[in-house]
Amino acid sequence: MPASRRTLENRLTRGLGGKPEKYKLTIVNPTLEVFHLAFELKGVNVAFTTPFKEDESIDEEALRKDIQYLVEAGVHGLVACSTPGEMALMGDEERKRVIRITVEESKGVPVIAEVGCARTKDAVELARFAEDVGAAAAMALTPWFFPQHPRGLRMHYETLADSIDIPVIINNLPEYTGVKLDPTLVDVLAFHPNIRGLNTSGDLIYFQELIERAGDRISFACGDDELIFPALCVGASGCIAALAACLPQMVLEMYNSFLKKDYGRCRQIQLNLIRLKNELRKVPYPYGQKLVQTLMGRPSGRTRMPLGPLTGVERVLLRKGMKKAGLI
Amino acid sequence: MPASRRTLENRLTRGLGGKPEKYKLTIVNPTLEVFHLAFELKGVNVAFTTPFKEDESIDEEALRKDIQYLVEAGVHGLVACSTPGEMALMGDEERKRVIRITVEESKGVPVIAEVGCARTKDAVELARFAEDVGAAAAMALTPWFFPQHPRGLRMHYETLADSIDIPVIINNLPEYTGVKLDPTLVDVLAFHPNIRGLNTSGDLIYFQELIERAGDRISFACGDDELIFPALCVGASGCIAALAACLPQMVLEMYNSFLKKDYGRCRQIQLNLIRLKNELRKVPYPYGQKLVQTLMGRPSGRTRMPLGPLTGVERVLLRKGMKKAGLI
Amino acid sequence: MPASRRTLENRLTRGLGGKPEKYKLTIVNPTLEVFHLAFELKGVNVAFTTPFKEDESIDEEALRKDIQYLVEAGVHGLVACSTPGEMALMGDEERKRVIRITVEESKGVPVIAEVGCARTKDAVELARFAEDVGAAAAMALTPWFFPQHPRGLRMHYETLADSIDIPVIINNLPEYTGVKLDPTLVDVLAFHPNIRGLNTSGDLIYFQELIERAGDRISFACGDDELIFPALCVGASGCIAALAACLPQMVLEMYNSFLKKDYGRCRQIQLNLIRLKNELRKVPYPYGQKLVQTLMGRPSGRTRMPLGPLTGVERVLLRKGMKKAGLI
Amino acid sequence: MPASRRTLENRLTRGLGGKPEKYKLTIVNPTLEVFHLAFELKGVNVAFTTPFKEDESIDEEALRKDIQYLVEAGVHGLVACSTPGEMALMGDEERKRVIRITVEESKGVPVIAEVGCARTKDAVELARFAEDVGAAAAMALTPWFFPQHPRGLRMHYETLADSIDIPVIINNLPEYTGVKLDPTLVDVLAFHPNIRGLNTSGDLIYFQELIERAGDRISFACGDDELIFPALCVGASGCIAALAACLPQMVLEMYNSFLKKDYGRCRQIQLNLIRLKNELRKVPYPYGQKLVQTLMGRPSGRTRMPLGPLTGVERVLLRKGMKKAGLI
Repeated sequence: MPASRRTLENRLTRGLGGKPEKYKLTIVNPTLEVFHLAFELKGVNVAFTTPFKEDESIDEEALRKDIQYLVEAGVHGLVACSTPGEMALMGDEERKRVIRITVEESKGVPVIAEVGCARTKDAVELARFAEDVGAAAAMALTPWFFPQHPRGLRMHYETLADSIDIPVIINNLPEYTGVKLDPTLVDVLAFHPNIRGLNTSGDLIYFQELIERAGDRISFACGDDELIFPALCVGASGCIAALAACLPQMVLEMYNSFLKKDYGRCRQIQLNLIRLKNELRKVPYPYGQKLVQTLMGRPSGRTRMPLGPLTGVERVLLRKGMKKAGLI
Repeated sequence: MPASRRTLENRLTRGLGGKPEKYKLTIVNPTLEVFHLAFELKGVNVAFTTPFKEDESIDEEALRKDIQYLVEAGVHGLVACSTPGEMALMGDEERKRVIRITVEESKGVPVIAEVGCARTKDAVELARFAEDVGAAAAMALTPWFFPQHPRGLRMHYETLADSIDIPVIINNLPEYTGVKLDPTLVDVLAFHPNIRGLNTSGDLIYFQELIERAGDRISFACGDDELIFPALCVGASGCIAALAACLPQMVLEMYNSFLKKDYGRCRQIQLNLIRLKNELRKVPYPYGQKLVQTLMGRPSGRTRMPLGPLTGVERVLLRKGMKKAGLI
Repeated sequence: MPASRRTLENRLTRGLGGKPEKYKLTIVNPTLEVFHLAFELKGVNVAFTTPFKEDESIDEEALRKDIQYLVEAGVHGLVACSTPGEMALMGDEERKRVIRITVEESKGVPVIAEVGCARTKDAVELARFAEDVGAAAAMALTPWFFPQHPRGLRMHYETLADSIDIPVIINNLPEYTGVKLDPTLVDVLAFHPNIRGLNTSGDLIYFQELIERAGDRISFACGDDELIFPALCVGASGCIAALAACLPQMVLEMYNSFLKKDYGRCRQIQLNLIRLKNELRKVPYPYGQKLVQTLMGRPSGRTRMPLGPLTGVERVLLRKGMKKAGLI
Repeated sequence: MPASRRTLENRLTRGLGGKPEKYKLTIVNPTLEVFHLAFELKGVNVAFTTPFKEDESIDEEALRKDIQYLVEAGVHGLVACSTPGEMALMGDEERKRVIRITVEESKGVPVIAEVGCARTKDAVELARFAEDVGAAAAMALTPWFFPQHPRGLRMHYETLADSIDIPVIINNLPEYTGVKLDPTLVDVLAFHPNIRGLNTSGDLIYFQELIERAGDRISFACGDDELIFPALCVGASGCIAALAACLPQMVLEMYNSFLKKDYGRCRQIQLNLIRLKNELRKVPYPYGQKLVQTLMGRPSGRTRMPLGPLTGVERVLLRKGMKKAGLI
């Protein structure tokens, strides 16, 4: 384990001292002396796309504008370099650059840096960088590619959580990684004082089982644009949504309608999101969403190969689908 | 198609004339002249088990008592010979006998007869019997065993719906049948005036897609004990629940809490059901549920082979799990 | 267990006495006193279709002619009422009728009666009938529909094997049943003196694992038309093939080429079978195969609903595909 | 497309001029003017592990020794930085280093450099490096992580094949990537003059379909240690095997027995490999194989986290399993 394990006291002190307005100490279990920092994974967190120029380089200007737009829209969190941000097609230096830019433009909106890597050491390095530049939390997608053993997964997350003072959020997206964390493992990880939330896609039975196991200690976000409303119903505290980058107002309205118990409206918006997702699924991921954003006035560039490109016909059909859905 | 297609007028007349208090005519679409009978698939419908004696014959006395218990508990519908009723292990004459007994003991509670068969002709025969003895609706599980073609599935349900005057409910349980109805096919079937509801298990994205397609014409019930509450949230009008045979009051309380918008209570009960289901999953299906019911004072007999049996150890562990859950 | 367990001696005596030319006693393991009867599952066994008339009744004349054709073609075994025979759409009396007719027309070719049922008791009844009318072996598809427990599966097959004196062949087709027998369970079952073979579809790693576990005691047949040649290579003693009903000479030639070590020819024929299967997969199962047989001069009738029907376009395309493949 | 497309003539000239002993020009289709270089994917190619020290750095000395051992054993090809080599846990510079070392120690045995990356641009860069240092071919695992579109996949491989003069081998391992190349796409790609082989795991029906489509133009290797023998039977020209790093003599003997048509011996060895694989599957991947190699006298180090580690109990059990199998 390359990361030197810092003491709990040190971590809490630094957390309290360094960023006092964000982190409040809460004693979770006095007998076990388990402390939780006061970060909360909740509300509408946007997993935004990374705009690329024609030569596949990052379009920093477009990126800054996009973040400014989302901040103005009132989102509750900014998720930098997540899966819709094409994290797996970017080098570590590029990911750091996007995290830094996101913090710079965040205007106080908490930044969740996606630091997941196939290798533990790389994830730790990214997480430390995220902490240093001021991210509010580090989210780490489960390691991918290789068959993962529960023991390795546990060490991965505990090493990560021991290495930084900002909270760690587990990101569990089986459709990308082939890994679906066992509820028993989540139960164990949720006892670590610095693991504070879990974002997950997947069916709601699984979601409820996770909440039953660890809902008293960590927060759960819905990572599936098509299940946000029912997930909120069964106890999610918020969502990490790709479509929220596309339609922040719509997802925010759904979240607020939920808080106001206007479930009819929630249902309507959720069906709208499903309809949009079904349109987007007809074209290469995540190029469709980028085109939609571009058509709505926020130039979002192209994807990196081998993702994309879109044909002319696909562009026309997507534009048509959006017009029909009243989006443009 | 062995069933003579009766005219719509005839069907509606018979429906109105024969059982006037139950069936009211509603004009759904005057230009298309699509009429829907007034049956509604809603509330808590119980898919109860069939009690068998040691020699595997039906224990009619126990069956009658069980139905009486459920009727008194206040359930909204009785589902005779469904999957937890071991439908696929019973001959047609036995299934008819259970349907008849259910109607006899129903005291006005609507009886939904599960008439699904691998062969269309057999399903039609059972459905006609159900209609003749007074069932309120005929539910038909999708055909199973063979690879099914959408064309055959459409003809299966349309033949069935043309053959009887009581409403047809589609039963879609991919975990039993390997068939997951395409939303497009459900959309088409929902235009048939005598197809009036669909019960489905499976993920909630799919559930929402079905509602989006056909929710204006037919009702949707949740066929998954572990998803009843979130399914109600996204628009289910009720459930067809196996665990409701075990714990009718609990499921009824969840349904009523939902109507009263007490979602905290719903969430609590739903988690309880998940906990119970996880216990039951540790022993052969559906013997565990039968044992739980027996332990709660309602002798539910054994299963037919090859289902079951339970070992002594399993019995002890299940009893322990139930005590821990506060059920006995 | 309704079947009275007959003693091993009795079984062997009856087997030896009753049908002396077919069954020879072989001592497999003298210390364990495990005896195996001398039936061998090997060569090309044909899982033929059941011809139905327009009213869905069995076309007995066509059936007899079809069996005569296969017998003349020189197949090594006749599998009555198997999955391509639409076993799951036929009543028990109908299945018995087909088994009886097959034996009557078999002219000494061993008849394997498929007696699989969802319920153990039904399978036993069919198996006893098969034994009584002179079938050489009873093959039983694993129970389907319900989630199966290894304990129940073991009792299912042991009850069956205890109830008859002709050999039992396990039929393991996960794509129909959702059940894939665990190699450990197969290992245990293979110790029963009356369980003598296993037919399986599925990947060849699994196939090899089964052979490794139990290949010293029972024979293995390939139940997948597209894997016959590689299965023979890794140790299958034969196949139970649906396409062999369509093209008996072709499959026999592949089997004989394998015995003569002409693997180039085997490869060629196996690719032909894959090509044909791909054509058949484009139309409803098993109507396509029935049409091909009809076009080749052996009227095979229609399927029972909900299987089929074929559209005119599908008929034309299939005929074209077959012409291209040089079959008609 | 960042890679400048070099002309076919140029590529062939360079190929002929630069490395004349290895590349011979063959005219595949004179009318289409499609030329294939004379590289052949065949025989036993070893996908060896990368030894890491306790600090997770590459143990170059152990690596060199390991390659020397394999070369002496007589393997037909060396696959550098493949999946058992933990490719996805290594940076680009590290992968280049391993490729270079492999070539340096290859003593004329062809080196296949695995250059697969999630991003096209990165794969091209690695492939050009591999060509420059003298690899015989560049194998590229299909892109992973994101949902892939056939159009993007096609452009990925064509860009790669246009960018280098050494042959490209497609590596198709759905269990790692979630991508299973469509036979139609393979058919198209196989027309590119510089795409010359495909390595695939997965079922043999799929394998045969690929051969049927493109077997006249490119070679197919079996990427599944448990299917090498049956894959050779249906037309594979060789294998890319992880276990061949563990037991080169055994895999070579199986390949040579196949050439000598001694299928009994092939079957025996294949079952041995399955047995060993089943033992290895009980411990974290690919640590088990590394430990086996170490126990056999070739220090293979540890894995990079989150893969591994092994517990003491696992080490003991694995050693026991190997003793039982007669390997140490």
